[in-house]
Amino acid sequence: MRVYLDHNATTPLRAEARAAMIAAMDVCGNPSSVHAEGRAAKALIEKARAQIAAAFGADGADIVFTSGSTEGAALTLAGRDLHGAAIEHDAVRSWISEDLPVSSDGLVAVDHPERSTLQLANSETGIVQDLPQGLAVTDATQAFGKLPVAFNWLGVEMALISAHKLGGPKGVGAVVMRRGTDLAAQIKGGGQEMGRRSGTENVIGIAGFGAAAETAGRDLADGVWERVAKLRNILEKALEADAKSTIFVGKDLVRLPNTLCLATPGWKGETQVMQMDLAGFAISAGSACSSGKVRASAVLRAMGYDEATASSAIRVSLGPETTETDVLRFAEAWLGKEKKHRARAA
Amino acid sequence: MRVYLDHNATTPLRAEARAAMIAAMDVCGNPSSVHAEGRAAKALIEKARAQIAAAFGADGADIVFTSGSTEGAALTLAGRDLHGAAIEHDAVRSWISEDLPVSSDGLVAVDHPERSTLQLANSETGIVQDLPQGLAVTDATQAFGKLPVAFNWLGVEMALISAHKLGGPKGVGAVVMRRGTDLAAQIKGGGQEMGRRSGTENVIGIAGFGAAAETAGRDLADGVWERVAKLRNILEKALEADAKSTIFVGKDLVRLPNTLCLATPGWKGETQVMQMDLAGFAISAGSACSSGKVRASAVLRAMGYDEATASSAIRVSLGPETTETDVLRFAEAWLGKEKKHRARAA
Repeated sequence: MRVYLDHNATTPLRAEARAAMIAAMDVCGNPSSVHAEGRAAKALIEKARAQIAAAFGADGADIVFTSGSTEGAALTLAGRDLHGAAIEHDAVRSWISEDLPVSSDGLVAVDHPERSTLQLANSETGIVQDLPQGLAVTDATQAFGKLPVAFNWLGVEMALISAHKLGGPKGVGAVVMRRGTDLAAQIKGGGQEMGRRSGTENVIGIAGFGAAAETAGRDLADGVWERVAKLRNILEKALEADAKSTIFVGKDLVRLPNTLCLATPGWKGETQVMQMDLAGFAISAGSACSSGKVRASAVLRAMGYDEATASSAIRVSLGPETTETDVLRFAEAWLGKEKKHRARAA
Repeated sequence: MRVYLDHNATTPLRAEARAAMIAAMDVCGNPSSVHAEGRAAKALIEKARAQIAAAFGADGADIVFTSGSTEGAALTLAGRDLHGAAIEHDAVRSWISEDLPVSSDGLVAVDHPERSTLQLANSETGIVQDLPQGLAVTDATQAFGKLPVAFNWLGVEMALISAHKLGGPKGVGAVVMRRGTDLAAQIKGGGQEMGRRSGTENVIGIAGFGAAAETAGRDLADGVWERVAKLRNILEKALEADAKSTIFVGKDLVRLPNTLCLATPGWKGETQVMQMDLAGFAISAGSACSSGKVRASAVLRAMGYDEATASSAIRVSLGPETTETDVLRFAEAWLGKEKKHRARAA
């Protein structure tokens, strides 16, 4: 029985999202068509838009569906040369002037919020930023669904969110923006999404996104992530008690409830991922969105860690379905490998 | 019992696509992750890529998954200022120099194929083009799955295809290109799809696209579209026999087997769509990808039809599940309305 501890890379599909998607499979119309079949498809999209607005505290905001946060980053950042930091996801780093300083605690200082982008929470360390008022763009991909976030209270112009980080399907996301924000389309044609993003909508995926967002919002209200945080802390304590030279990144900082980032200098993160995979556990080294490439964590490097430490980092990220048995089994397995690593290194 | 005759706008999900998507829902990994869950997700994508390559005669070509042909058009056309014609889809028209002449038969003459784009088949009339060798880009969205097309024999550099036109889900497509074609990414980040299109892949949708393409290929081989063409011709003859001033666009031309485009000057296409919708039939006026906007058909205008004719055009597009009863019921209903229209107009 495998244990999936890589929820920041992607999440299992929630039962509610699955059901909504299967139901959407029976609606055959094109949402742009004016006939009954088209209107039924359109209604599914609008239902999802309302579910997401409610879960993300974005009533009255504009929600533009995309194929995910990577497209969202291109849509909101390309050609704008906003200021940003090296701890951002590669999808954001592709478009920014990477000149915002990062503290050893992983926190970013922003001078000109209206010309800057800053993530809400880091995918590798889970460290949460205190966003400045008036920020141009925030990548809320990792935070949405795990932290109580209300777009309308964030004071940012635009936010990126993604379905597959909160139990929805991969390949669907949205840009949330203050109503009427000026945003030039990059994908043009039929004029869907108020002209901001053309193309026949991913109706089935969007229906899954809406249902996942609604359920994620309920989980948050029900304290599910407090339980997950407890498990994360149990795991952290168990590893800390026996590991000898391991650094627990972000331990005393405000971070995502499910994320544990640890570095054991000299023991490659990539090696640990493979060893744990063989032992039945899915975790990751660095950001998972890198097409199999494994490099030293740019996030840890930006926080001032040296190359040996940054290339030894792994991320263990829990989900609502993670159990205490899961984390204790992981601790036992990882500590066994860590002991062997030390014996070899000695 | 409604009759869906708008397959060029979008198609019902094929049973095989549905099954493949539901199976993919159980695969939770991120295709970029190196662990077992990630590799399983990656395998689904590669299976679909192989299914599409086989169905589209594109073995050895590169297939880059997108969110659909509208994104594919932006990816292959933006910033290139290729020559094209006014009969192209709006997603293509957004990026071209619209200077290629269109004949009264809807055919386009191309002088510089390497700097031009031309659709394989028109969405509104179904008229099929004879593509010149060396063409830069063809929009094969309507042709793929309905006509026997082999990318490797087309002699074009790149082709756009979309899942939801052949029984796959909406929101998934691909750009097919000769291996190694130089194509700069517009959505950047994790480096997925060989760096040409970043972002976590729509795994469930892609699995559905693969299964739909495979089944569509089998349908073609089994002569399904010859049967559909017979039904389309039965419908055309039935309408022709009684309609008084209706023009059957593309009647004697090479066109898609499922498409019927008819114009009844003075009777707005939009009105016909609504009347037929109320009578239980889904058809469309003009291109369906226009977010509910209904205008005079730019395609018919480009072919030289006047405004009154172009704004009276409707499209009836059949699918593999269409029956003779369906088309005869449609003929009866439409002819009834046509008679009333004439009585009012008289």
